[in-house]
Amino acid sequence: MATSIRHMLKDELQYVVRGTLWIECEQERFFGPGRVELLQRIDETGSIRKAAAGMGMSYKKAWAMVTALNRQVQRPLVVVKVGGEKGGGSIITDEARELITYHSQLRQRFLAFLEKEANDLKESRDLKPK
Amino acid sequence: MATSIRHMLKDELQYVVRGTLWIECEQERFFGPGRVELLQRIDETGSIRKAAAGMGMSYKKAWAMVTALNRQVQRPLVVVKVGGEKGGGSIITDEARELITYHSQLRQRFLAFLEKEANDLKESRDLKPK
Repeated sequence: MATSIRHMLKDELQYVVRGTLWIECEQERFFGPGRVELLQRIDETGSIRKAAAGMGMSYKKAWAMVTALNRQVQRPLVVVKVGGEKGGGSIITDEARELITYHSQLRQRFLAFLEKEANDLKESRDLKPK
Repeated sequence: MATSIRHMLKDELQYVVRGTLWIECEQERFFGPGRVELLQRIDETGSIRKAAAGMGMSYKKAWAMVTALNRQVQRPLVVVKVGGEKGGGSIITDEARELITYHSQLRQRFLAFLEKEANDLKESRDLKPK
């Protein structure tokens, strides 16, 4: 049976379960919240440079992330248009959109997990006789 | 229906879902892997100082963690014995043991969640016609 710690928690305090999630590819970061945000911002701005600036990230770092992402999947997620970043800008592919959707759903499943755990803590406390 | 990204992953690469989990109390860290390890080491060594040293942590930081932990629950998790750390050493309470057990079970549930997500990625890839 699952051990409960409800009896040791203070009624007047709020306890929440938090966490972070990411996916690795061959022991390297594949994607997590940061890379998803970068893809979304490239989509909004049409530019890796502007996307990076909006996140307070160097262009060099953003470029390295894009290169890594493109290498970790079968087909590119970000395509630099003719003329390069200075000329044509960059776009994200349909695969990148699928990845963003997948990540959003994964995040929802994770938040549901965290919420259930937090409720299991809290609910039991509410049942506790005052 | 859940979006799958299996078709965009490379067959020759390994993808895993990773994450970390912790519990907060009033927007402050309550406990996670570090504090659980500290409690376990205090139990093994009978000393906050030795426990801290074993983790490469300063005595000051370990003491602050113990003070925070004791403040965040109804009854203390660590008790400094008569004579203090230099004299009697420190022990962990039954509540601390329950917290360690709870954390271990929470971690198992989280690992099961991560494994299921990783399998959903991988399994689908195995079904993919070569």
